[in-house]
Amino acid sequence: MSENPTINLNPTGHPMPLVGVGMWQVPNDKATDLVIEALKLGYRLVDCASDYGNEKEIGIALKKAFDEGIVKRQDIFVTSKLWNTNHHPKHVRQAFERTLKDLQLDYLDLYLIHFPIALKYVDPDARKAGEWSDPHEKEIVTEDVPIHETWKAMEELVDAGLVKNIGISNFNGGLLMDLLRYARIKPSVLQIEHSPYLTQERLVNYAKSQGLAVTGYSNFSNLSYVGFIPHAKEAPILFDQPVIKELAGRYNKSPAQIVLKWCVQRQIAIIPKSKNHDRLAQNRNIFDFELTQEELHKISSLNANMRFNDPGNYADLPIFD
Amino acid sequence: MSENPTINLNPTGHPMPLVGVGMWQVPNDKATDLVIEALKLGYRLVDCASDYGNEKEIGIALKKAFDEGIVKRQDIFVTSKLWNTNHHPKHVRQAFERTLKDLQLDYLDLYLIHFPIALKYVDPDARKAGEWSDPHEKEIVTEDVPIHETWKAMEELVDAGLVKNIGISNFNGGLLMDLLRYARIKPSVLQIEHSPYLTQERLVNYAKSQGLAVTGYSNFSNLSYVGFIPHAKEAPILFDQPVIKELAGRYNKSPAQIVLKWCVQRQIAIIPKSKNHDRLAQNRNIFDFELTQEELHKISSLNANMRFNDPGNYADLPIFD
Repeated sequence: MSENPTINLNPTGHPMPLVGVGMWQVPNDKATDLVIEALKLGYRLVDCASDYGNEKEIGIALKKAFDEGIVKRQDIFVTSKLWNTNHHPKHVRQAFERTLKDLQLDYLDLYLIHFPIALKYVDPDARKAGEWSDPHEKEIVTEDVPIHETWKAMEELVDAGLVKNIGISNFNGGLLMDLLRYARIKPSVLQIEHSPYLTQERLVNYAKSQGLAVTGYSNFSNLSYVGFIPHAKEAPILFDQPVIKELAGRYNKSPAQIVLKWCVQRQIAIIPKSKNHDRLAQNRNIFDFELTQEELHKISSLNANMRFNDPGNYADLPIFD
Repeated sequence: MSENPTINLNPTGHPMPLVGVGMWQVPNDKATDLVIEALKLGYRLVDCASDYGNEKEIGIALKKAFDEGIVKRQDIFVTSKLWNTNHHPKHVRQAFERTLKDLQLDYLDLYLIHFPIALKYVDPDARKAGEWSDPHEKEIVTEDVPIHETWKAMEELVDAGLVKNIGISNFNGGLLMDLLRYARIKPSVLQIEHSPYLTQERLVNYAKSQGLAVTGYSNFSNLSYVGFIPHAKEAPILFDQPVIKELAGRYNKSPAQIVLKWCVQRQIAIIPKSKNHDRLAQNRNIFDFELTQEELHKISSLNANMRFNDPGNYADLPIFD
């Protein structure tokens, strides 16, 4: 297997790297260096989002990487996401162009609707990264923008040649099915929380059957949420699961590498990150071994439908209920 | 508490009885008698659906009940549901009028979208009740009709004075949230599978917070599915749960009455049925006792997110995933 295996996206045929580096929770003062480091290590996909609040720093890294010849624009795949406060068609292009400017790019490879939740517009200069509450009302305020109107505005970005592929994140099966009923340009990618504790097999299989590529985030499950989500400790830390430890020993890999390999062998793209250089390198170093079908099944059998990134947990927004 | 407590629907203010009789799986040769019997026992809500295949027989019963003075039209509440093959706006009114004609009524109190799934149109005369596969293709065939277009046609039924309230069934939280973003006439009712094994608290609370009344079906959970759904035996039959048996003993009620009371005390409307006269009577005889908050919580703690009426179980239609 190549060092940068890809999956061909529909309907465009563009290849998307199966392994990328994710920018969620990367502090502003670390983002530039992390992107440069990741690109030098061979990463060719950077998963960004306006909501992560670090696109300017990522843009500085990308410009530097192009200027210094670390990579060419056409050799990398850049994803970003439309935040909830920009769902109104009149804000979609504006939000996209801000992201494009921050990233210092003239097109994106992929743009996703971050959540199927339309919140009242907030001036992006007044918005704090990761904040769901309206800064004036001090609470979450929804806005009456249906997803089909937002999607139409996403399609117009493709028409305008600004983005190659569009997709969705945090959509459930019912919403995805409905989107497929009206999309003029079908979604290329579904990005969802996905881990051995949340295998989502039916949703993944359905999405694939409809031609979507699936990207999984939070592959390490509760490990990434201990400290700020109470039920993160309800199950053993994923890396302490005997089956993960056993396979790590068998293949002389880290538990993280076992979990990531389990994802990519199921043809689910991954976007892990690490602030640690060695672990950042390790997260890509998963193509010199293969798990058996039985081993994949054993890992999948850890499934407990355990979800962490769920707006229903902290607000009356039960998108997964 | 009155013998026929009601819940006021939004936005119309119409009262909907909290207890009704459901017509799912009532054989054609029993449907007429069952409706008459239920009305004589005091039931004032009949929950029908085109898909149940017995609306003609129900219509005969309703006419007889009106003719014989058992009830007046304005004293009862009749619900029906739009089947999946009629989601296209050009079929909605036709499907509705067929139901109206079969039921021998000139209006409905409530009409629901049965599932958030649009299937290819099938001539209703060629359709077998309960059948999901297309009769010609011999497999399930979806149709590109988004829910917002179907909903618009539902709203037009209200405009035409044909139905007093419209609503949805088997919608998940994400789909309900999206519907609320575009509905000109808000849904009055959400009907969902609901039992102590599937309490759906966040969805129920959200729906209520948005002004919808919630009707729960299959309140007896696995008891209703043993024999035709394999995982129905994975948990103890609901009525064998110690907490249910204990409360039945304490209040000198049947396990069924305890479960139904748990529903209505949570302000969730119920539509049980029974072919047995005594049990049909018992299902309404639940207003002479009250469960305590602690007892309600104990029953709710049986929740196992165990769902039975799930198209994702038998087809690639993961509306709940």
